[in-house]
Amino acid sequence: MTTAETDIFQTLESEVRSYSRGWPTVFESASGSWLRSEDGRDYLDFFAGAGALNYGHNNPVLKAALIDYIAGDGITHGLDMHTVAKRELLESFDSHILKPRGLDYKVQFPGPTGANAVESALKLARKVTGRSSIINFTNAFHGMTLGALSVTGNSMKRAGAGIPLVHATPMPFDNYFDGVTEDFHWFSRVLDDSGSGLNRPAAVIVETVQGEGGVNVARPEWLRALAKLCSDRDILLIVDDVQMGCGRTGPFFSFEIAGITPDIVTLSKSIGGYGLPMALTLFKRDLDVWSPGEHNGTFRGNNPAFVTSKVALDHYWSDDSLHQATLAKGARIAEAFTELSTRYEGQVSTRGRGLVQGLVFEEPDHAAKVCNIAFDQGLLAETSGPSDEVVKLLPPLTITEDELDHGLRILTEATDTVCS
Amino acid sequence: MTTAETDIFQTLESEVRSYSRGWPTVFESASGSWLRSEDGRDYLDFFAGAGALNYGHNNPVLKAALIDYIAGDGITHGLDMHTVAKRELLESFDSHILKPRGLDYKVQFPGPTGANAVESALKLARKVTGRSSIINFTNAFHGMTLGALSVTGNSMKRAGAGIPLVHATPMPFDNYFDGVTEDFHWFSRVLDDSGSGLNRPAAVIVETVQGEGGVNVARPEWLRALAKLCSDRDILLIVDDVQMGCGRTGPFFSFEIAGITPDIVTLSKSIGGYGLPMALTLFKRDLDVWSPGEHNGTFRGNNPAFVTSKVALDHYWSDDSLHQATLAKGARIAEAFTELSTRYEGQVSTRGRGLVQGLVFEEPDHAAKVCNIAFDQGLLAETSGPSDEVVKLLPPLTITEDELDHGLRILTEATDTVCS
Amino acid sequence: MTTAETDIFQTLESEVRSYSRGWPTVFESASGSWLRSEDGRDYLDFFAGAGALNYGHNNPVLKAALIDYIAGDGITHGLDMHTVAKRELLESFDSHILKPRGLDYKVQFPGPTGANAVESALKLARKVTGRSSIINFTNAFHGMTLGALSVTGNSMKRAGAGIPLVHATPMPFDNYFDGVTEDFHWFSRVLDDSGSGLNRPAAVIVETVQGEGGVNVARPEWLRALAKLCSDRDILLIVDDVQMGCGRTGPFFSFEIAGITPDIVTLSKSIGGYGLPMALTLFKRDLDVWSPGEHNGTFRGNNPAFVTSKVALDHYWSDDSLHQATLAKGARIAEAFTELSTRYEGQVSTRGRGLVQGLVFEEPDHAAKVCNIAFDQGLLAETSGPSDEVVKLLPPLTITEDELDHGLRILTEATDTVCS
Amino acid sequence: MTTAETDIFQTLESEVRSYSRGWPTVFESASGSWLRSEDGRDYLDFFAGAGALNYGHNNPVLKAALIDYIAGDGITHGLDMHTVAKRELLESFDSHILKPRGLDYKVQFPGPTGANAVESALKLARKVTGRSSIINFTNAFHGMTLGALSVTGNSMKRAGAGIPLVHATPMPFDNYFDGVTEDFHWFSRVLDDSGSGLNRPAAVIVETVQGEGGVNVARPEWLRALAKLCSDRDILLIVDDVQMGCGRTGPFFSFEIAGITPDIVTLSKSIGGYGLPMALTLFKRDLDVWSPGEHNGTFRGNNPAFVTSKVALDHYWSDDSLHQATLAKGARIAEAFTELSTRYEGQVSTRGRGLVQGLVFEEPDHAAKVCNIAFDQGLLAETSGPSDEVVKLLPPLTITEDELDHGLRILTEATDTVCS
Repeated sequence: MTTAETDIFQTLESEVRSYSRGWPTVFESASGSWLRSEDGRDYLDFFAGAGALNYGHNNPVLKAALIDYIAGDGITHGLDMHTVAKRELLESFDSHILKPRGLDYKVQFPGPTGANAVESALKLARKVTGRSSIINFTNAFHGMTLGALSVTGNSMKRAGAGIPLVHATPMPFDNYFDGVTEDFHWFSRVLDDSGSGLNRPAAVIVETVQGEGGVNVARPEWLRALAKLCSDRDILLIVDDVQMGCGRTGPFFSFEIAGITPDIVTLSKSIGGYGLPMALTLFKRDLDVWSPGEHNGTFRGNNPAFVTSKVALDHYWSDDSLHQATLAKGARIAEAFTELSTRYEGQVSTRGRGLVQGLVFEEPDHAAKVCNIAFDQGLLAETSGPSDEVVKLLPPLTITEDELDHGLRILTEATDTVCS
Repeated sequence: MTTAETDIFQTLESEVRSYSRGWPTVFESASGSWLRSEDGRDYLDFFAGAGALNYGHNNPVLKAALIDYIAGDGITHGLDMHTVAKRELLESFDSHILKPRGLDYKVQFPGPTGANAVESALKLARKVTGRSSIINFTNAFHGMTLGALSVTGNSMKRAGAGIPLVHATPMPFDNYFDGVTEDFHWFSRVLDDSGSGLNRPAAVIVETVQGEGGVNVARPEWLRALAKLCSDRDILLIVDDVQMGCGRTGPFFSFEIAGITPDIVTLSKSIGGYGLPMALTLFKRDLDVWSPGEHNGTFRGNNPAFVTSKVALDHYWSDDSLHQATLAKGARIAEAFTELSTRYEGQVSTRGRGLVQGLVFEEPDHAAKVCNIAFDQGLLAETSGPSDEVVKLLPPLTITEDELDHGLRILTEATDTVCS
Repeated sequence: MTTAETDIFQTLESEVRSYSRGWPTVFESASGSWLRSEDGRDYLDFFAGAGALNYGHNNPVLKAALIDYIAGDGITHGLDMHTVAKRELLESFDSHILKPRGLDYKVQFPGPTGANAVESALKLARKVTGRSSIINFTNAFHGMTLGALSVTGNSMKRAGAGIPLVHATPMPFDNYFDGVTEDFHWFSRVLDDSGSGLNRPAAVIVETVQGEGGVNVARPEWLRALAKLCSDRDILLIVDDVQMGCGRTGPFFSFEIAGITPDIVTLSKSIGGYGLPMALTLFKRDLDVWSPGEHNGTFRGNNPAFVTSKVALDHYWSDDSLHQATLAKGARIAEAFTELSTRYEGQVSTRGRGLVQGLVFEEPDHAAKVCNIAFDQGLLAETSGPSDEVVKLLPPLTITEDELDHGLRILTEATDTVCS
Repeated sequence: MTTAETDIFQTLESEVRSYSRGWPTVFESASGSWLRSEDGRDYLDFFAGAGALNYGHNNPVLKAALIDYIAGDGITHGLDMHTVAKRELLESFDSHILKPRGLDYKVQFPGPTGANAVESALKLARKVTGRSSIINFTNAFHGMTLGALSVTGNSMKRAGAGIPLVHATPMPFDNYFDGVTEDFHWFSRVLDDSGSGLNRPAAVIVETVQGEGGVNVARPEWLRALAKLCSDRDILLIVDDVQMGCGRTGPFFSFEIAGITPDIVTLSKSIGGYGLPMALTLFKRDLDVWSPGEHNGTFRGNNPAFVTSKVALDHYWSDDSLHQATLAKGARIAEAFTELSTRYEGQVSTRGRGLVQGLVFEEPDHAAKVCNIAFDQGLLAETSGPSDEVVKLLPPLTITEDELDHGLRILTEATDTVCS
């Protein structure tokens, strides 16, 4: 990487660029759990496209199908026309995902990003209920478009809106008060008090594990209580499974662990399988009150992603082996992190579920130091949390145990360096 | 198409689906200007993915590069990391597009949809100016996310928001009053009257030709006057070139015809070349006040689209042959439509620029009838306009003259059938 | 007025004080059309409490009733309890005002200020229609509370809100384009265009003559067309008659001249008769969808004002003599102003209706100069309009012809001084 | 009261009327703590105009001054002109109220209602801080205009707005969780968490005792902690003393008990002394950033109220005898209510401060029953609280001990009847 080569990024690309600052190299190719930079260095990927690459980079099974499809002049851009690729995806999604779980959802293609899915979910919840207000949670992340941003917690990103973000009220996520306060003490009280001043909400939107928010893990019993709180009061429950769905926490949907059935579910990131832009909004059949074309979008029919999505569903979700492997690998990370937490008690703690695991540093800038050392050692990992105090691991679900161990060694040494 | 085959669409896909209703078949493959349904029928495409397929379906030049890239394990999903594919795209965009036009723009990758580009443009304009209000135009279309929807005109789509859409005030688009009223009579008056009650706007967002709005064409002098009105009053001018950019009207940017330099420009649809999701937000260098990561998105680095985008720029924009060919083909359509307008004076009129051309019916439902007949004859064309009174043509720019003539014959016959 | 005497105003009262700056004296008493300062100077009042003193200062007929009521321990503060004073007011209002005009209105006591009346009118219109948006007019003035301010035009006052004022869209008031553009060309067009981007309004709020806005006079035919435009589209018409009602323009309601029946009417300022705080909101019987207590306010039952209001109605509105006298006096001002307009053609023009008359200066600061000279000569008159370019006369309706002539002489000489 | 007599109320007055439903008689005159209906019945007033009549009905000291002023043709309606009456009021307010308490406040006359004071306070806080969001408390009541209503808790009244009420977020008032949760646990946590999603507030608005909300009493230590929380974070503290100020809780300002100095204070109701409409907004000197006329209002200079206000200040606030008497009378009520609470343990409890005292019924409709019986026995008392479960006493501060005992006997017997 010569200076001249990087010039075009610095001179032409907006200052909004972000990951390129923490990982100052130019990537060229990728395979499985590895990226390679143009100067030939290999990087083990514990980030996986922020959860968009659950099946690894350029997964060969999906790649073959994708190349076949493109080579065969399959429909590339399909708006919301019926296509063979869409039908096959719907069939696989129905048979591998919905039917086995007893979920009677309708499927919307809301545009190819998580934000599109969230925007369509909020619109639908408001249309169905006739109410405008949404409840979100502390440290939530749902996207950058105006509707999604209004339910996102990060104050820097909220300020980017340039207008007051309204119609959303944050409530404490699970364990926000370290167990001192009873769950939903505040939320259920203000909902049931006609004088509380809380606008009656159309919906609650929640992530079961908050990735960007710092790997905050909602307990199943908390999720169940939330679902009951909503259904008792005729409030819709939206689970934003954009990052935690598609097997990230083990099961296909992250909410399965709680045994709940959300009214609306958003999927994106890994739903396309290959890192191609795609999103779905799922909702209970009786909520399908959309008029034709009431929500649309040019790229809602990204058919190459339908192809890789379908193959990923067929290949990885016809049995529970990926689910179990994810839990096992997650446990392996948790074990390593627990060891670090014991070694550096008071400095480091850990939390996570399945293959989203966080190493939490009391001293927030330790997290960035660990990630910087890791990058130098050929490992990509990101910080998250309100003070960027968490090293957040989102490796591909397809990572091998050896790769996992290799990466964990790097992180352990980096932590030793920083904390000793 | 058997009943069983369509079942999954009807039972599983949301009622929000739209194009599939007007074109009741299942498409399987596509090439150039043609789509083929699974039952073997060929359809000439005068719609081109709503302008996302300016270079045709599965353009062989782009396809080769795309397959090579995928086969070679090029980075697929790159967030906003530096990648070789991104650098090459930036270089081509700079050398073929920006430099020759003397445009000193910074480039943002705001997420892969036009709505992402519009949302980022509005956020930036508000951040730069510290003002909240935006001026949009009658019959504008800018997208379905909450920020983009607030500047979109269509009342059915606006109602989908479920909350009052505020912070935007519509002004009359060019020729809204059929030339009776002086341009900007109302707009400039309320801007300059401190008692008008109009909130001082951060920006004006405009399409140079309103596609969804009914092929309403802004005259160059109107655009110049709008640009002057904005710059005289320190209001930012955003040209939304999502549909009309990338050569649709002839030149790469649709605003070139007016000789203006917008403060902010949005691109999407055909910028990826191959129908893959991609978008860019361009803005004058001194407006680049973004903080790192202040606007982000999982799929803002859709590298396969960068590859096809770069090849499209190299192949089609190193000289002005595409530009000229587009004008010539547009003239051909205009000629045919003018003939129809003469033949059915009082019933039919025409308007357009380059390869966006509209046939306007006094009797709104005639437009749908013409499109239905055309579909039966193997031609895809869509209606637009507030009463769906316009048959809107957006053929691939790469369409051949024979194909064009074939499609125009079908439309002429259909119009004869409907209007006689 | 010694320095010491003014100290307390300067040291203790907020900088928001306004009229005291243009009229730097301390007033002590008042009677009829005259105020007297504590240093013994008399000032002829061509402002009349911004229209709150249509029957003059301390009108003896009302004064006697007021003192009797207070002396007799009549209810002073009555919330919305039934009181004898309220009943007598309602009876007089019904028999002298509503019945003779065939108006089947319900009467709300919304709190004692014009802003309370406007806020209640907007709330009711939104509740009835289920829509949020309101149409207001350029240079409108409706009050300073958040709802009323959102439909007020003045940009300085709007900025005082500290939040974006939304849910209102301004339309051009009558003659905003000097007759060049057809009435309602823009308004009716955007209402009827489903793609215009205008949120469908709950109501239109209008002043028949804009006092604060610069004595802009809506023609009867414009008001009729507005009323028809609203009723044709199921939009409620609110006439804000806070300043122009109670006989200011001649008839009791300013809209009588147009022969229209607004859906909702607001009254305040002179409705109390004696300058005491009071307001009414009137609306068609079928719009009375309020729940008990849904809108309330501590001072909505200011019974002393009910007493003076009732006496004013009985005394001044049992025949049309005040109406006719107001027209005659208005004509007298108009005549004097027309003479000035002729004398200073190009510098001065005039407009008005009944006893609201404006002298409009091409050079805006001439208006303030005239008012300053007038003050020095013992006459109170105020400027209005977006550039404070209008000397606005609102003398008491009970002013004598001699007083009127005296004041007009002062204004004529002041204009001579400024314009010669 | 004959049927004919009530007809005009039923046929002409809006359904929004409220108190007249609970107290179905027509009042004619009043004196001290008593109202008399036109049929000659006397009612002891434990409501005092919702706190607007702290000095009793038609207080003879104030009445004499008021009649003198009116008879002498003192200025009645003064806008914000300097008047002798205003100067004398400012002098008394400064010498009796501000100076002895060391309060360096500027004084704004925002219009004559509490809602005007609240609206001006919110506008000023937003202007000073450049932020839009306000924190209010559960069960707050601040008024019915759009700005004031947005910070009011009651859901029925909020629904009357007809638009989503935004820019305000409720926090738990003192003791909202019955002492189980630490004070400000939630509020301070979300303020200090940059990822909480709470918009950074311009100000907190609080009542020290919530009257409408059910006689909820904030402890001095809670108020001190709130003041500290605000000042530590550069958030303005607004104490809405419209109902609890002017001696209602003992001291002139209700916040004196906590030893805090709010940034902004609102006064209305009893500030005029005689039940005449008047309000003040007080704020620290350095917050006086208003432009002249940026907030105005026709009745902001209700000079007769200035006269009675000044006399009330002179007469009642030159020493602390009223303060002490109020505490003593409050203790008398508390004693009686404590006895009832003991007698009906589990059914009845009590809370209050000074002369605002509440009798709280477990069975909400018992409160209305008690008030109905009381009315029949010639006592006016109102319910409050989210379920109208509290009998709220607000007797005149000038009530005699005999009157107090008489009223308490009626309430005791009514409670015995309802609870036995």
